[in-house]
Amino acid sequence: MQIEIYDTTLRDGAQGEGVNFSLDDKVLIARRLDEVGVDFVEGGYPLSNPKDAEFFQRIAADPLKHSKLCAFGMTRRRGMKPADDPGMKSLMDSQAPVVTIVGKTSDFHVAEVLRVSEQENIDMIAETIAYFVGEGREVIYDAEHCFDGLKINEAYALQTLTAAADAGAMRIVMCDTNGGTMPEEVAHYVKLVQEAVDKPVGIHTHNDCELAIANSLAAVDAGATHVQGTINGFGERCGNADLISVMANLGLKKKGYQVLGGKQTEHLTELSRYVYEIANMGYRINQPFVGASAFAHKGGMHVHAVNRVAHSYEHIPPESVGNERRVLVSELSGRSNILAMATKLNLQEDKELMDRILHEVVELENQGYQFEAAEASFALLVQRIAGTFAPHFELVKYHVSTESRGGVSLNEGPVTEATVKLSIDDEIEHRVAEGDGPINALDGALRKALKGRFPALAQMQLVDYKVRVINSEAATAASVRVIIETRDSDGETWGTVGVNENVIQASWDALVDSFEYKLAKEGRA
Amino acid sequence: MQIEIYDTTLRDGAQGEGVNFSLDDKVLIARRLDEVGVDFVEGGYPLSNPKDAEFFQRIAADPLKHSKLCAFGMTRRRGMKPADDPGMKSLMDSQAPVVTIVGKTSDFHVAEVLRVSEQENIDMIAETIAYFVGEGREVIYDAEHCFDGLKINEAYALQTLTAAADAGAMRIVMCDTNGGTMPEEVAHYVKLVQEAVDKPVGIHTHNDCELAIANSLAAVDAGATHVQGTINGFGERCGNADLISVMANLGLKKKGYQVLGGKQTEHLTELSRYVYEIANMGYRINQPFVGASAFAHKGGMHVHAVNRVAHSYEHIPPESVGNERRVLVSELSGRSNILAMATKLNLQEDKELMDRILHEVVELENQGYQFEAAEASFALLVQRIAGTFAPHFELVKYHVSTESRGGVSLNEGPVTEATVKLSIDDEIEHRVAEGDGPINALDGALRKALKGRFPALAQMQLVDYKVRVINSEAATAASVRVIIETRDSDGETWGTVGVNENVIQASWDALVDSFEYKLAKEGRA
Repeated sequence: MQIEIYDTTLRDGAQGEGVNFSLDDKVLIARRLDEVGVDFVEGGYPLSNPKDAEFFQRIAADPLKHSKLCAFGMTRRRGMKPADDPGMKSLMDSQAPVVTIVGKTSDFHVAEVLRVSEQENIDMIAETIAYFVGEGREVIYDAEHCFDGLKINEAYALQTLTAAADAGAMRIVMCDTNGGTMPEEVAHYVKLVQEAVDKPVGIHTHNDCELAIANSLAAVDAGATHVQGTINGFGERCGNADLISVMANLGLKKKGYQVLGGKQTEHLTELSRYVYEIANMGYRINQPFVGASAFAHKGGMHVHAVNRVAHSYEHIPPESVGNERRVLVSELSGRSNILAMATKLNLQEDKELMDRILHEVVELENQGYQFEAAEASFALLVQRIAGTFAPHFELVKYHVSTESRGGVSLNEGPVTEATVKLSIDDEIEHRVAEGDGPINALDGALRKALKGRFPALAQMQLVDYKVRVINSEAATAASVRVIIETRDSDGETWGTVGVNENVIQASWDALVDSFEYKLAKEGRA
Repeated sequence: MQIEIYDTTLRDGAQGEGVNFSLDDKVLIARRLDEVGVDFVEGGYPLSNPKDAEFFQRIAADPLKHSKLCAFGMTRRRGMKPADDPGMKSLMDSQAPVVTIVGKTSDFHVAEVLRVSEQENIDMIAETIAYFVGEGREVIYDAEHCFDGLKINEAYALQTLTAAADAGAMRIVMCDTNGGTMPEEVAHYVKLVQEAVDKPVGIHTHNDCELAIANSLAAVDAGATHVQGTINGFGERCGNADLISVMANLGLKKKGYQVLGGKQTEHLTELSRYVYEIANMGYRINQPFVGASAFAHKGGMHVHAVNRVAHSYEHIPPESVGNERRVLVSELSGRSNILAMATKLNLQEDKELMDRILHEVVELENQGYQFEAAEASFALLVQRIAGTFAPHFELVKYHVSTESRGGVSLNEGPVTEATVKLSIDDEIEHRVAEGDGPINALDGALRKALKGRFPALAQMQLVDYKVRVINSEAATAASVRVIIETRDSDGETWGTVGVNENVIQASWDALVDSFEYKLAKEGRA
């Protein structure tokens, strides 16, 4: 059976703490969801802010190809005709072919939050839906606090749902608004509602009990054919159901269901990361299915077995969701991980060397190093220990300074200057550069000092820079770990790491590793 | 019914990417779990590394008060007597009263990974367990790949489990090792195994399908009385079942179950954060039950309603898990959030002021500011806009420099010096300090310049410092957001934020806000 996927990343997802989309961000995400083949894309709540209203104009000028665009709004205000309500007008102005209306299911909320009579609430639902149907729009009805409402007053809750269905809503979506419902309750009430209304039933869950996915799947097993959620589970509080996990479970794990027309789960990893990038948020490395750790193997015993019989330690092939297997370096991993990385580096299987590498990795991890996101630094470390590393340059001195004067306008900003003095083949290069900050200035001075001898360095650029305080109890005097990600013109990216009490020194160490990695790569080429 | 909680944070949790515990870390966590009242604490795998072996000696010297300490190991090697096996010896040496033995359930793994006969595997399980029972230890049997094994060859899988039970294992724990099992399958097989073995059944799940919690609960509903997992869901790949969510769901949400002797869920938030701190990892703000966002309200409509009828938007009272309600500032929040924060700051309900604040917040958010973790900066912002802010000092100039010389040993490190020139009541203070890094040096110079007039500054210290690149595509030339967390001697902590292309300037701005917040606080006192 085909299950409809309804994405609300751009509306409910944008309620998540730390989630901020610009207008362009929203358009980019909507178009990507359209390409992937999501059935419904909710673009926003046009009444709530001008950005959302403008979004719908942008899409109306160049409509989505596959997905149906939905605009979100509430039922009409009390004691007002739909046609007179500014919320209804903003939804009409959005030109979205589908209107998603949220209404109240719980008599408690009707009395305490909405403060209208039970009949007025039902009229608000029915008249709002009938109005849009009359205007030629399709309507999806989101029943807020649906499960709580059914628990408190089942008869009244069912009345609101049948009113919505009778007024012409195409889907009746049961929302677990506060995320507190258990899977067995979801199953029970979805069956009940399915028997009571003659329209397809949908589900909308939140992750407050860490059960958003289980609740979505329980609803589908009970007969729901429409699932609402957000990419990466963005959303208020603990987030909405992560559509990535919903689609992977329905498409790959459970029997008898299809999503996205039965294809495309191999694009889920790309979709997840695209949305993180647009939102300027870091990936969740342990995210189910699509996280960088989802098919990573650390324990020595497991790695050994995975190499032999991969599928027995992986519940699905990583490539079925567009992800990949990784072998990690760690103190628990024993020799087989180190060996896997060392073999990749074309080193001999040398037991004594492996012992020294393992010992050194444990030492460095105790200091705060992590090589899991810094494979280039690990490769250089192995070469250093093996005695095969020949540095392309040596530091004589660097100096970096930042000065700011009070009263200077923000646009002029502080001035940062770095000098780098290197010894290269016994010759001295001493260069200076300004930059937007100390790392940028050091990067600039280092490039100036090296570019004469190593023009290939122009092909690489730093693409990410992360700083983490390791012992946060000691704050600014604690060690920091810097991870730098560099991308080459051939698309290869690599990570390097530096650890020091001084963020400048930690950054310098990571920077130098990145340069040396590139120069070693050129030497091999 | 009382459900046993078995914590494996120190063993399976330590397999998580980015998770590293020192020996002291492990001891601290074990003692905290003991205090909270967890039934079993698995301390490690003594054969795998000396740190785990040493951990057991440390605990043996001063045993846990409440929790039973468990040492983890595998079944004996093939063709060897248990007494001759070094793994068995390390478990005996650990002096742990409980031994947890993992064995193979799936005939596929017996043939392809273990490479022994089906009978030899059963002998390995039975003899290993019988050996420890004979030595006076309690034994918990972890059945690896239990669900996959039952699916492939139910009869053989059941044979391995009954062999373990008959040999004297006190618990038969069904492990979903690769995390690929669906809740309905878990329920089915737990019932089946419960009927086949005469010992209490346990469950051990992983989160690869984002169903670890649902699977744990499904197992309990099917009759399992023992749940294994880790604090915060640490663990390999996508992690283990998060015991925080397991305990909150069993203790507060589902009917008829008790954990931790029926009390103590109000310590879950503290426990979660303690383990993150010890592990030196950032909190997951959207973590169910205990995350900082779990009871945070952002959308304007919701905030309005939450203030009126809190319980209708919160599935449990935040304090039942030791968490608290928060009201967030954001572009979507409308006026009621701003109003809530402004009211907290004793400002009048001034519509025009609220509009200006809202407008300014949207502007700053577009530049990359976030006030959700920086309420002190927000409070200062409101005062600046309201015209009630009087700075205690003004910057004339700061200068910070770092110099490092090649060949200097790592212990000596680079030298960082900061000078700060301030104008305070029209007098100039010009001071210099060295530091472990630029922020530490600036903090030191700022304190020197201010301490004569404001001795109360000695009461506060910086406790965390975070840096995030905002537009990561532009790397070192992109803007960075710095968040500084400061703690006062009275226990109050506050966050401040700075955004700039230059990490030094962004840090300076956050630092100055933190100092001004403290000085304003002193002024009110």
